[in-house]
Amino acid sequence: MGRKETYDNLIKEIGEVEIMSQIGSLLSWDQEVMMPENGGALRAEQLAWVSKAIHEKITDPKIGDMLDKLETETDYDEIQDANIRLIREQYNKATKKPSWFVEELARHSSKSLKSWQKARAEDDFSIFRDDLKKMIDYNRQLADFLGWDDNRYDALLDIYETGLTVKQVDPLFEGLRDSLVPLVKSVMEKGKQESDDWIEGNVFPIESQENISQYVAKALGFNFDAGRRDKSTHPFCGGPNPDDVRWTTRYDESEPFGSLYGSMHEVGHALYEQGRPRDLDLQPAGHAVSLGIHESQSRLWENQIGRSVEFCEWVLPLWKKEFPHMSETTIDQFWRAVNLTEPSLIRVEADEATYNLHIMIRYEIEKKLINGDLEVDDLPNAWNDAYETYLGIRSPNNSLGVLQDVHWSMGAFGYFPTYTLGNLYAAQLLDAARKDLTELEEQIRQGDFNHLLDWMRKHIHARGSILKPEDLILEVTGKLPTPEPFVSYLRNKLESLYAI
Amino acid sequence: MGRKETYDNLIKEIGEVEIMSQIGSLLSWDQEVMMPENGGALRAEQLAWVSKAIHEKITDPKIGDMLDKLETETDYDEIQDANIRLIREQYNKATKKPSWFVEELARHSSKSLKSWQKARAEDDFSIFRDDLKKMIDYNRQLADFLGWDDNRYDALLDIYETGLTVKQVDPLFEGLRDSLVPLVKSVMEKGKQESDDWIEGNVFPIESQENISQYVAKALGFNFDAGRRDKSTHPFCGGPNPDDVRWTTRYDESEPFGSLYGSMHEVGHALYEQGRPRDLDLQPAGHAVSLGIHESQSRLWENQIGRSVEFCEWVLPLWKKEFPHMSETTIDQFWRAVNLTEPSLIRVEADEATYNLHIMIRYEIEKKLINGDLEVDDLPNAWNDAYETYLGIRSPNNSLGVLQDVHWSMGAFGYFPTYTLGNLYAAQLLDAARKDLTELEEQIRQGDFNHLLDWMRKHIHARGSILKPEDLILEVTGKLPTPEPFVSYLRNKLESLYAI
Repeated sequence: MGRKETYDNLIKEIGEVEIMSQIGSLLSWDQEVMMPENGGALRAEQLAWVSKAIHEKITDPKIGDMLDKLETETDYDEIQDANIRLIREQYNKATKKPSWFVEELARHSSKSLKSWQKARAEDDFSIFRDDLKKMIDYNRQLADFLGWDDNRYDALLDIYETGLTVKQVDPLFEGLRDSLVPLVKSVMEKGKQESDDWIEGNVFPIESQENISQYVAKALGFNFDAGRRDKSTHPFCGGPNPDDVRWTTRYDESEPFGSLYGSMHEVGHALYEQGRPRDLDLQPAGHAVSLGIHESQSRLWENQIGRSVEFCEWVLPLWKKEFPHMSETTIDQFWRAVNLTEPSLIRVEADEATYNLHIMIRYEIEKKLINGDLEVDDLPNAWNDAYETYLGIRSPNNSLGVLQDVHWSMGAFGYFPTYTLGNLYAAQLLDAARKDLTELEEQIRQGDFNHLLDWMRKHIHARGSILKPEDLILEVTGKLPTPEPFVSYLRNKLESLYAI
Repeated sequence: MGRKETYDNLIKEIGEVEIMSQIGSLLSWDQEVMMPENGGALRAEQLAWVSKAIHEKITDPKIGDMLDKLETETDYDEIQDANIRLIREQYNKATKKPSWFVEELARHSSKSLKSWQKARAEDDFSIFRDDLKKMIDYNRQLADFLGWDDNRYDALLDIYETGLTVKQVDPLFEGLRDSLVPLVKSVMEKGKQESDDWIEGNVFPIESQENISQYVAKALGFNFDAGRRDKSTHPFCGGPNPDDVRWTTRYDESEPFGSLYGSMHEVGHALYEQGRPRDLDLQPAGHAVSLGIHESQSRLWENQIGRSVEFCEWVLPLWKKEFPHMSETTIDQFWRAVNLTEPSLIRVEADEATYNLHIMIRYEIEKKLINGDLEVDDLPNAWNDAYETYLGIRSPNNSLGVLQDVHWSMGAFGYFPTYTLGNLYAAQLLDAARKDLTELEEQIRQGDFNHLLDWMRKHIHARGSILKPEDLILEVTGKLPTPEPFVSYLRNKLESLYAI
C-alpha cells in the first residue's frame, strides 16, 4: 500500500471513531437534558457500549501499523502532520492503559461519584475519604502508565492540555498570584458594596430571562439552524458536531445574572464548535484544539465582553424591556452589579478576580496529592488553610469546602488548571484582536459582535487542532502564554470599579 | 462448549445488537423532535454507522454457527424457543442483504426524509420525486435480496408482519371493502351532518390541548418517569427501551380532536412498550411481537375506547374546563363530533369506517410501484384517482394527497397493511376482554382504565414475542384473526350514530 493510500485508510478508520464519538455526545446530551427519570440504567449500558466500541477501534493494531508506516517519512503538509500526530497521541494514550485498569477505573468512578454525592449531602468527608484515596492511587497509576519525566502530575495535565507541564504552569500561576492576591486585598479594604434594590427581593420571570438568553446568543452569532439552547441542572455545551451544537443554561427567578452569563459562557464554547474547519470534518485536525483554548472562548464572551461597560450599555435596554421594575437602573449600577468582586467559598460562583485563586488552590493541592506530599486525611485542613491564605476566608463545613467540586470523584485530576489557562489565553487573544479591531468598543456598544467573532473564527476556530495549543497562541499573538494581559486587564477594571 | 453456554453466549452477543438498536432509536427520535435544521447530513452518517454495526454483528458467522448448534436439539422452554427462532429470522433476513446495501439504504432514508419534509411543506412533489424513485428501486432490490415466490411485494410485507402475503391480504381487504363501502355509502346517504357551532370558527388554545393530552395519557396509565411526550410533524412512538418510551403528537388551534386522538393512539403504542416483560430485557423474546399487534393496542385506545360514549362522558368535563366556550356542549354532541364519519383526504385524521379505505389505496399503489406497474411520475394522479374511486373525493394539492405520509420517505413499503390488521386484532381482543371485564363500560365512564390495561398487560404486553402474532391472537381470543368482530363493532356503532 502506498503512503497516500495508507494515510487515507487511517483517516477513514478514524472517521468511524469520530462518528461513534458524535453518537456518544448525543447520548450524553440527551441524558442531561431530555431523558426521563427511569432511563438511567439502560443509558449507562448504551454509553458503555459506545466507549467499548471506540476503545476497540482506536486500539486496533492496524492503526498502530499504519502510524508506524506513516511516521517513517516527514514531508507532510500541516494538516496531515497534525492528523498523524493526534492519532498517534490517541493511540498511545489508549494502548498504554491495560484494559483491566480502564475497566476498574470506570467501575471505581461510578462508586466514588456516589460516595462523593453522599458525603457532600451529609457534609461528612469520611464517607468520601476511602474512595478518594483510592482514586488518587488510580491516578498515580494512570500517570505511570502514560509516562512522565519531571513530575508525575505532568502526565495528568497532558490528558487535558497536550504538552502542559508543571514547569510551565508554576511560573504562570505564581505571576498571577503575586498580582491577584494584593489586588483582591485592595478591593476588600474598600469595604462591602451595598446591594441594589432593583436586584434584592425582586422576581425576574424565567420567560424573560429566556428571551434575553436567546436574543444575546443570536446577537453574538450563534446559529440556531445548527444548534439548540436548552435548560439543564448543570449548564454545558455539547452536541454531536458543528452542524448540531447544543448548549444549556439554568434559570433562577431571584438571580437573573447566572442565566445570562452562563449562556454567554456556553455560547462562547458553542461558537468555537460551530466555527471548526468543515473541510476537516471527521478528522482529529478539525477538532477544537484543547480545553484551555476552549475555555478562552467561553471566558472571552462571558467576562471580557459580557462584563465590559460597553456590553452593559448595549444590553441594559433589553433588560429594562423584560424587567420593567429596572426602569431607573443606570448603566453604572448594572455594570457594577455584574462585576461585584468579593472572596467567596464556591468556585463556580466566583467573580473574575477571585476565580483563579480557587483554581490555584486546587492546582497546588492536586500536585501534592499526586506526588504523595499530602495525605488524604490532611486534605480538608489543607483546603481550608489555603482558602484562608489566598482569599482570607474559611469554610464553615466541608460541603462548601473540599467537597464542592465533582471533578476528583470522577477521577479528573489535572483538569482544573485549564480553567485559568482559558482566562489567560482570553486576555492575550483579546489584546491581539484589539490591534486589528480599532473600533471594537464602539462595535460592542452597538451590539455588533461580528468583527470580533470573525477574528476568532479566522485565527482560532478555523485553525482546528492543526497546531498545538501553545503554538497556536504564539502564532496568533506573537507571544507564548503569559499572565500579563490578564493581570493588566483585571487591574484596569478593578481600578475603575473600586477606585483602588 | 455446552448447549447452555452456547445459548447464553448467543443471548449475550444479541444483547449488543439490542443496545445498538436502542441507540439507533434515540438518534431517530432526536432527528424528528430535537435536531436543528443543519444536523441532517451528519445524523445520516451516524444512523448509517449504527445500521452497519448492527448488520456486522448480526451477520457474524459465529451467530450462524451458534444457531446451527442450538437447532440440533428441541427441548427448550418457550422463551428459549422464541429467542432461537427470532434470532434465526433476524440472521437470515440480515445475511441476505449485503452490508453496502444496508448502509446505502440507511443513508438514503435520512436524505429522503428531509426531501419529503421539504416537498410537503412547499407542496412540491418534484422535490421528493427523485428520492422516492430511488427509494422504490432500493425496495425492489431489497425484496430480491430477501427472496419471494409469488409476488415481489410479499418480501416486503414479511418484514413488518412475518409470513404475511398478498394472497392473504387480498381476500381479507376485499372482504372488508365489501362490508365497508356499503356502510359508508349508507352514512353518506343520510346527508352531511351540520357542523357544530362549538367547533367551527372557535380557537382551541394549544396549551389547553397539551393539558388534555397530558392528563389523558396519565389516566390511561402512561408512566412519565419512563417516557416523554413531545411535538412533531408526524406523530410517532419511539424511544430506546421500556424505561424510556417517547411519543409525540401535533396540535392545531382550530381542530382539537387530532391532538387528543393522536395522543391516545401513540399512548396505546407506548403502553405496550412500557409493558414489555422486563425479565427479557435485551432479548428478542422480550420485544413487542409485531406491527399488527402493536397497532391493535394503539387503535384500541384511540378508537374503541377513545370514541366510545362512555369515554366521552368521562372526558367531556375536562374539555369544558379547558375550553369554556363548550359549556353547553352535550355528551351526545361530543360523541357524534368525535365519530363524524365522512370521506376525507388525510389518513391519520380519518374516521374508523373510512380509515381502512385509505389503507387499501396505499396497499394497491405499493403493490403496483414495487411490481413496476406504476411509475413515480404517474403517482400523484394515481393517488388522486384512487381517492376518487374509493372515497369520492380528490385532493386539491399533493401535500394533502400523496405527500401526506412519512412512510415511503423512510423506505417503509409493506407497512401500511399492518394498520388495518391492527383494527381487526383490536376488535377481536376487546371482544375477548369484555368477557373477563363485565364492568368495563362503567369503569371507562369513571376514567378507570386500569382493568383493561392490566388485561392487555397480562395477555398481550407481558407475552412479548414468545408466540407468533397469529398464535398469540389464538391464545388470547380462542380464534385465528378474523374481520368479523371489527365489522360487527363498526356496524353497531354506525347504526347508533346514524340510524342506518
